[in-house]
Amino acid sequence: MNGYARQREHDKMPTIKTKNQHADQGLIYTAASPYNKITPVPIGAVTMGEGFWKTRIEANRTKGIPALLAQLEEHGTVDNFRRMTGRKDVDRQGPFFTDSDLYKWMEGAALVLASTPDAKVKQALDGVIDDVVAAQRPDGYLNTFFEGALDNERFRNLGHEHELYCAGHLFQAAVAHYRATGETKLLDCATRFADYLVKNFGPGKIEQADGHPEIEMALVELYRTTGKREYLNLAGFFISLQNFHARQKIGGHAVREAYISAGAADYYAETGDAKLRKALDIVWKDVASSKVYITGGLGSRHAGEAVGDPFELPNERAYAETCAAIANGMWNFRMLGLDGAARYGDMLERALYNGFLSGVSQDTTHWFYVNPLACWGTYQREPWFGCTCCPTNVVRTLAAIPGYLYGTSKDGVWIHLYDNSNMDWHLQDGKKLSIEQKTRYPWDGRIRIAVNPESESDFELHLRIPEWCGKASVEVNGSECKGVKAGEYFEIKRAWKPGDVVELHLKMPVELMEADQRVADDRGQVAIQRGPLVYCLESVDNPDAPLRDLRISEKAGFKSEFKPELVGGVVTIATEAEARSGSKRNSLYHPLSGDKDGKTRDYKVTAIPYFAWANRGPSEMEVWIPLSRS
Amino acid sequence: MNGYARQREHDKMPTIKTKNQHADQGLIYTAASPYNKITPVPIGAVTMGEGFWKTRIEANRTKGIPALLAQLEEHGTVDNFRRMTGRKDVDRQGPFFTDSDLYKWMEGAALVLASTPDAKVKQALDGVIDDVVAAQRPDGYLNTFFEGALDNERFRNLGHEHELYCAGHLFQAAVAHYRATGETKLLDCATRFADYLVKNFGPGKIEQADGHPEIEMALVELYRTTGKREYLNLAGFFISLQNFHARQKIGGHAVREAYISAGAADYYAETGDAKLRKALDIVWKDVASSKVYITGGLGSRHAGEAVGDPFELPNERAYAETCAAIANGMWNFRMLGLDGAARYGDMLERALYNGFLSGVSQDTTHWFYVNPLACWGTYQREPWFGCTCCPTNVVRTLAAIPGYLYGTSKDGVWIHLYDNSNMDWHLQDGKKLSIEQKTRYPWDGRIRIAVNPESESDFELHLRIPEWCGKASVEVNGSECKGVKAGEYFEIKRAWKPGDVVELHLKMPVELMEADQRVADDRGQVAIQRGPLVYCLESVDNPDAPLRDLRISEKAGFKSEFKPELVGGVVTIATEAEARSGSKRNSLYHPLSGDKDGKTRDYKVTAIPYFAWANRGPSEMEVWIPLSRS
Repeated sequence: MNGYARQREHDKMPTIKTKNQHADQGLIYTAASPYNKITPVPIGAVTMGEGFWKTRIEANRTKGIPALLAQLEEHGTVDNFRRMTGRKDVDRQGPFFTDSDLYKWMEGAALVLASTPDAKVKQALDGVIDDVVAAQRPDGYLNTFFEGALDNERFRNLGHEHELYCAGHLFQAAVAHYRATGETKLLDCATRFADYLVKNFGPGKIEQADGHPEIEMALVELYRTTGKREYLNLAGFFISLQNFHARQKIGGHAVREAYISAGAADYYAETGDAKLRKALDIVWKDVASSKVYITGGLGSRHAGEAVGDPFELPNERAYAETCAAIANGMWNFRMLGLDGAARYGDMLERALYNGFLSGVSQDTTHWFYVNPLACWGTYQREPWFGCTCCPTNVVRTLAAIPGYLYGTSKDGVWIHLYDNSNMDWHLQDGKKLSIEQKTRYPWDGRIRIAVNPESESDFELHLRIPEWCGKASVEVNGSECKGVKAGEYFEIKRAWKPGDVVELHLKMPVELMEADQRVADDRGQVAIQRGPLVYCLESVDNPDAPLRDLRISEKAGFKSEFKPELVGGVVTIATEAEARSGSKRNSLYHPLSGDKDGKTRDYKVTAIPYFAWANRGPSEMEVWIPLSRS
Repeated sequence: MNGYARQREHDKMPTIKTKNQHADQGLIYTAASPYNKITPVPIGAVTMGEGFWKTRIEANRTKGIPALLAQLEEHGTVDNFRRMTGRKDVDRQGPFFTDSDLYKWMEGAALVLASTPDAKVKQALDGVIDDVVAAQRPDGYLNTFFEGALDNERFRNLGHEHELYCAGHLFQAAVAHYRATGETKLLDCATRFADYLVKNFGPGKIEQADGHPEIEMALVELYRTTGKREYLNLAGFFISLQNFHARQKIGGHAVREAYISAGAADYYAETGDAKLRKALDIVWKDVASSKVYITGGLGSRHAGEAVGDPFELPNERAYAETCAAIANGMWNFRMLGLDGAARYGDMLERALYNGFLSGVSQDTTHWFYVNPLACWGTYQREPWFGCTCCPTNVVRTLAAIPGYLYGTSKDGVWIHLYDNSNMDWHLQDGKKLSIEQKTRYPWDGRIRIAVNPESESDFELHLRIPEWCGKASVEVNGSECKGVKAGEYFEIKRAWKPGDVVELHLKMPVELMEADQRVADDRGQVAIQRGPLVYCLESVDNPDAPLRDLRISEKAGFKSEFKPELVGGVVTIATEAEARSGSKRNSLYHPLSGDKDGKTRDYKVTAIPYFAWANRGPSEMEVWIPLSRS
């Protein structure tokens, strides 16, 4: 047993003895967090079956991970470390924050290893770890931008130079690597750096936080793994400096806002700081009620990559950075852990299936930084960005998916997300439990859940009934349960026996969604949604229809059909739409009464999931479709 | 007769002998322009009667002009000239382009003097002219930013430092001053500077245009007044450098784009350059069909003060700089002169009554730089801006209004805009003609036009029938004319006798306007319009109604009423609107079907003309109102 497996002082829960204690720790390790309710089941305890996410997780492992490392090598991101040790004699390349890109890739590779032994990934990661660790200074500091003459200027411009942001990503990679492998080489490097930060930051020392939050949640997680309370305290110090407690709204850079909120949620889980929790609730409500896209994306403005005013949610000019959807998911996953409110799981699901997944191509090698909700042919995916934060963030998030599905609390087990999978784990009292999901979710809403405790035991199974699902039913061993409600976790408390089966049926008719009319950009328009998936019209599926002129009737009929050959297999939605023609067509403004003179022509159109667009060459795309008045 | 009254070589029209030949020249002096059709009747020949514009012109003369000069003095804009001559020992103040602000004020003051003898304005203007002219260098150059060490760096950064832009405004002020007064002190200063530019710019000399167009139209006008063809050629050189001939669309900075287009139209009027005319038509159509606000405002983006992509016309985040509406009007006035197509007069009217006039408060002392079409309480008028281009531009434009109303062509006389006024002028053959308009326009569409030639004569009277007017009628001495069509000039060709009366009736029912649905920001919404005026809902008139939640029915009834006490007297429009309440109200996205569960509440609401908003303290405002589906 290594030094990191020791129990924390305040850890009052019984220690579960397993052969790999490091692997007991989930995506975030909150089993001992006093103000947390649900703790994630670790990735290693979840086996994904053939299905929606496995396809993507495998593409990420076999294509995305190596392709992105090749890009990082090509652009000098790894060499930036090698030159520190003389392993490579090259100039430093890329912006000042490139270290964080490599760290995110490393975290992704480590998360891959947590679920799948993959010799190639392991070898590549080991090599990179060796280069990174070798570059660390004797005093623990590590940043490839601040070297040479700049080595004496560490922390000179924390507001803009991302030093602690990079450190945070190192810590997250190190924790993930330790949890996946039990190896401590990178974790030791991280703690040396964290100790250096503890020595240099705090009251009476450097009293400044990084302009780009991220280190806060990383420090809490490092504390959770090492038990070193100084790390938690330093996280709290940074959160206080940013005055999170006083927040009345979300504002400014979307990713930073979601990261600091995630960090605050982590810190609350450990400390129970009531003011922090209140601020979290206020900020969360501000986002959910007025500042999030229907895709779960955040960030309305290109300027400053910022969230906008309430209800400022432009579609074509949306920023909705992929990183912001990821950060939104991370934050909501932490909020969900705090109290198990389904609204956080709903937001996580919305972000994952839409605004996050749109950020990556089907083959996991081309990326979106910006995720607009309408496009008139001018925007495409790229294999690389000068600021490549999003691709590396996608890679670590896809690898993390198995860790989002299941959780445990004192009273039982929780299923947050649905997909073919096996959970082989235990309740918090140590009793072994396996759960098997069989489903075609999100294409179909029927989920068969086999519940197999090692022996009969009383506990609660919590099933998230998504807020989008107006008609959900639950049967246990063929008997229907009562009181199933959308937007809540449905609790089944019983003496579970091996062989018990739950049939969850989330009916997913096609819905036309509308927005609060204060969202000026969505007025008079509807978005097609089916289950958790937001749909769009893409021109490649509708070559004969004038996409930008189409209107849809609220009485439109829909036909959903799984097309296995389309963008890796998606359910398409066929419907009808109309377009006006006639004399007023070319008038920018005209009397409404004159509109009726125009003729309309009907078109059969096909919608695809929003996440799947921009996989087939340049195209036009639209999520929000004008509603016809007929 | 001074040196500037000489006829130009190419001037083939008969010279009209009047006692003040300088005063024969209208806002733009195109009487001798070979490729121009209509030439403006000069300001001095038009007397505004009590009515819509006179109120504003008088407020401008008595309040705006002195208030703005006081601001220019307070902020050192005039002192910047005085320090050049040692009259004041102060540091230079303000941005590098402040000279242009003073020049625009001077042009405004000169235009005031063209219509009204005003000793105070004359004295103030004479004083400023003296300070400006004294600051001119012996070689003719004049710019208060490039002095001292910078004097050797003239034209070092034409792309960004507005030197020729400032020169252009000096030229325009000088021409206006000469036309108003016959005095040549400022005009001599302008020609000395223009001669210096001719010496320094051109093929084989400095081959670069200013980053901010403006000087092009100023040089053409200076040519029109002085007959010096070098000025016209230099304008053509600058237009060629900017490759206007090849334009396929408008793009970039809205004001600059409209100014260069205005300059190109001026240059075409003199040269008949067919490629230039083609480019003008292409660019105009691009604006009119996809890039202009319903207010006549231009500029969708705060970033770069730029026009956007086609149909990119956000409302709350509109830029629609006051200067851009002015520039749009100037450009269209020039296009109108070229061929007399009513669409240009319609655009001029739209811009003047809406997007331009919104830029100034009722008392002409507070200003908008940005003119949004929706506001949620955070935006107010200011008495001054660090970049104060808009207020000074408003001042010169209000003073110019009388010069926009009437024009003459070879075949007769044109009325472009309607308001109580007398034109005492002559036809192009020299025969005296007076026209009197009696009307309450734009509050009422009835216009009584008394036509009084000095003796019976054959000519055409051209009346603009606005495109907004579906029902217009014309009677001549009580007999109705046939063939009156919206969006055209109606021509009455007859032997006119003293005492003839034309009754024009432009019916102006309230119309709900909609936009081309490719304007995503206006989808499912309507704007209230009556006559040339776009209306808005302002919270100060509707304290009990939840402005942002209102919807209006396409069957709504309207009651128009003149309220003499409201914002200087406006016609208000009363109507009904509904707002939803109910459980879905606080959900950002929800199924359309669920919407019907909500209850609606009806409100009586009052709309005011858009130009009149923001005169009564902080408020919310909205032009585009969602259409209810009921």
